[in-house]
Amino acid sequence: MKKLPDIKQDFSGWYNEVIYDAELVDQSPVKGCMVIRPYGYAIWERIVSVLDERIKATGHSNASFPLLIPESFLKREAQHVAGFAPELAVVTHAGGKELEEPLVIRPTSETIIHHMFSRWIRSWRDLPLKINQWANVVRWEMRTRPFLRTTEFFWQEGHTAHETRDEADQEVQTMLQEYVKLAQNYLAVPVITGTKTDHEKFPGAEKTMTFEAFMPDGKALQMGTSHLLSQSFAHAFEMKFQDRQEQQSYPYLTSWGTTTRLIGALVMTHGDQKGLVLPPNIAPIQVVIIPIFKSGTDSSVIIAAAHSLQKNLQKEGVRVCIDDEEGKTPGSKFFKWELKGVPVRIELGPKDIENNQAVVVDRIGLGKRFIPLSDIVAEVATLLNTIQTIMFKNAQERTHQMRHKSDNLVEFGSLLEELGVFYQTSWCGNAECETELKNYKASIRCILEGRTFETCFHCKQASKSDVLVARSY
Amino acid sequence: MKKLPDIKQDFSGWYNEVIYDAELVDQSPVKGCMVIRPYGYAIWERIVSVLDERIKATGHSNASFPLLIPESFLKREAQHVAGFAPELAVVTHAGGKELEEPLVIRPTSETIIHHMFSRWIRSWRDLPLKINQWANVVRWEMRTRPFLRTTEFFWQEGHTAHETRDEADQEVQTMLQEYVKLAQNYLAVPVITGTKTDHEKFPGAEKTMTFEAFMPDGKALQMGTSHLLSQSFAHAFEMKFQDRQEQQSYPYLTSWGTTTRLIGALVMTHGDQKGLVLPPNIAPIQVVIIPIFKSGTDSSVIIAAAHSLQKNLQKEGVRVCIDDEEGKTPGSKFFKWELKGVPVRIELGPKDIENNQAVVVDRIGLGKRFIPLSDIVAEVATLLNTIQTIMFKNAQERTHQMRHKSDNLVEFGSLLEELGVFYQTSWCGNAECETELKNYKASIRCILEGRTFETCFHCKQASKSDVLVARSY
Repeated sequence: MKKLPDIKQDFSGWYNEVIYDAELVDQSPVKGCMVIRPYGYAIWERIVSVLDERIKATGHSNASFPLLIPESFLKREAQHVAGFAPELAVVTHAGGKELEEPLVIRPTSETIIHHMFSRWIRSWRDLPLKINQWANVVRWEMRTRPFLRTTEFFWQEGHTAHETRDEADQEVQTMLQEYVKLAQNYLAVPVITGTKTDHEKFPGAEKTMTFEAFMPDGKALQMGTSHLLSQSFAHAFEMKFQDRQEQQSYPYLTSWGTTTRLIGALVMTHGDQKGLVLPPNIAPIQVVIIPIFKSGTDSSVIIAAAHSLQKNLQKEGVRVCIDDEEGKTPGSKFFKWELKGVPVRIELGPKDIENNQAVVVDRIGLGKRFIPLSDIVAEVATLLNTIQTIMFKNAQERTHQMRHKSDNLVEFGSLLEELGVFYQTSWCGNAECETELKNYKASIRCILEGRTFETCFHCKQASKSDVLVARSY
Repeated sequence: MKKLPDIKQDFSGWYNEVIYDAELVDQSPVKGCMVIRPYGYAIWERIVSVLDERIKATGHSNASFPLLIPESFLKREAQHVAGFAPELAVVTHAGGKELEEPLVIRPTSETIIHHMFSRWIRSWRDLPLKINQWANVVRWEMRTRPFLRTTEFFWQEGHTAHETRDEADQEVQTMLQEYVKLAQNYLAVPVITGTKTDHEKFPGAEKTMTFEAFMPDGKALQMGTSHLLSQSFAHAFEMKFQDRQEQQSYPYLTSWGTTTRLIGALVMTHGDQKGLVLPPNIAPIQVVIIPIFKSGTDSSVIIAAAHSLQKNLQKEGVRVCIDDEEGKTPGSKFFKWELKGVPVRIELGPKDIENNQAVVVDRIGLGKRFIPLSDIVAEVATLLNTIQTIMFKNAQERTHQMRHKSDNLVEFGSLLEELGVFYQTSWCGNAECETELKNYKASIRCILEGRTFETCFHCKQASKSDVLVARSY
């Protein structure tokens, strides 16, 4: 069996192989686009299901807006078009003719959704308007990597309109917190939230909040963002409403999104030398049962026991499958399901049946256990919870260990690459000092609350607030 | 309040208004593309949820393939490209540059999925391969109508590969039957299944099965199709596998799909002069509770009773909302929810609370009923089932009444427009006779099993089988 590249020596090579070997994804004939295979897509379906429920519970409705957007729409908000123009895919011909106005494939849908909002919002009674869309978007990226940065990707984009700035800002915070819960409670990926600098914020937004995760190599991964757009798009799309004082006002807008990139975060955060390690709360398959046949024994008894166990686990809501493929050794099956990161494996052999027990092995190395068949459903449920908790704690500890503090870029800049670390430092707020980080291929990932050092990491003028500095995906 | 066009005199005008007034859809600034509003999208989500469960239960896995397909891929199967070329939207520029090879937005995904299949299928052990994709597709249509024919639409497309033609044909039938169940048991839309003629079949397929519904105006609506592609695409994409005899073989392929068009069928089949009528099994809101306030009475008691009733209904899995919007008359609320087609309305006023009862009104005219609050959950559950059953029966009877038999095109051809009818007749199987139907703006919707008349409807030569003839959407 093929071995993965050494995860410690060649983390990048490991990632590029494990995603194919575990059958999450395949290369497509279209540059930068990915084929998401059933196992990878099942992870995305789990993420969608969890997040969609929370999006609805927080008062949003799903809707759908066109894939294609008139080029002129993008141009209405000056910063917006400047930010996205270099990445657009453009439809110039359709139905055998050249189009009068080219259409772009949506890189994000603010413009077309705001156009519709301006039709729907007439009075303060129409607010808040809270819409979400699950969609594919296209951004023509130069360098792509499956899940992390692809030309086409999947996401949800929430778009809301509010009477006041305060209410809009509250929405930005609420959805950011929903993202944090998804990341930490389901993906078991610890994240740090903060504000993007003006340079890094969404084109056209007043403020961009982000949640960032730090991968084992110390690089940051932006997991998603929540924007306070305020009124600039409302002005651009003439979105006015009669307010409670019977005056014409512009609503305050927000948008927020997270993408298939989360799958990349999941892979990198938890994977090991054997392959994926999936947290039980998001794993498409939480338990695999492997019947072990021995020549001279009755395999039908084992198969029956496996199916009975599967049913009992399913009743408790456990996602469980049986691998009874013929012609493969137990060892090769163990290898396969470890590669795919299934949290718990149950082995059932003739000896086990005799002893009314099963062998239970977890994917995170807690150790092999022999469990009486009568206890197994309860034990597996507990074990899945334990694994989830431990995976998050381990990831959190590692993030903690990677996080260092320093007030001097000259000292920590060169360490950013070598040691798998990231830095909390303090910043004066000036773009010149931010730009200095490019020399170390790093950037400010987010601005934090509070201030550790009195001076800026670069100019040594008075600092305004702490920032996290890292290389990033 | 605005009145809808007369549904009997101007069915088409009625449809074009009811879909906007009921807030299913809105016009988009992109020609032929629609904005699906939350209420319309909620219907689609219900359809997706029901069908997705069956697609998985029948052994298929969801996956995802690129939106953009190299133009050369379409050309590999000669009939396929001929069929789709006139409808393609083409990306010629991306990332600020002209592309070396133009990319088309998928009109359907056979070509790119078969390309991937050829990588994944090596041996008979890899078969059957059963994949489904939920996706948006684009076909540049000249004349569009929301849901019925749009430039961009949503669908699922199943794609499977099998060892034998028989097994592939069985798959085609299985999925066709799943579609029939969705249409009849959930949408309450009666359908007739049959085979498409060579002229009407999917470009590149050996055989296309269809399920057709007949709208109140007598026009047929193709609800979806299930294709036996056989080996032509396998040859075009060099998809070979080692069979059980250790020979290189080509697999037999199928594909099958159904779309957001189903929402159009739902609207037309059941709607009435007051608006939509949604079958309970697919309605996003099955029950609306309307508290009725009277001046001088305590509205908080009524609100509390409404919420308690909502909770009890939700416990039983009923999708229920409360309309307690202030400043609107009960009459205007009745109007709104009738327009939106909610199957059951519950009115709760001070008198009702006094008498420990509620007023229950159904959307299909069974009549107003006073139900004790203690019985209401059970009664509503029964009523929803009754409504579902009656809606399907009514639609089935109307379809039956519209279906006529005749062996002579000269007699029935001109009736196709005038009477809201369609015809079962017999056909020789020749394309010339099929083409003759164009004079009546009609077509063969499907070929049925069996033969009613001995001679063809046009040439009077021996007939081969019965066909359904109708105008169509």
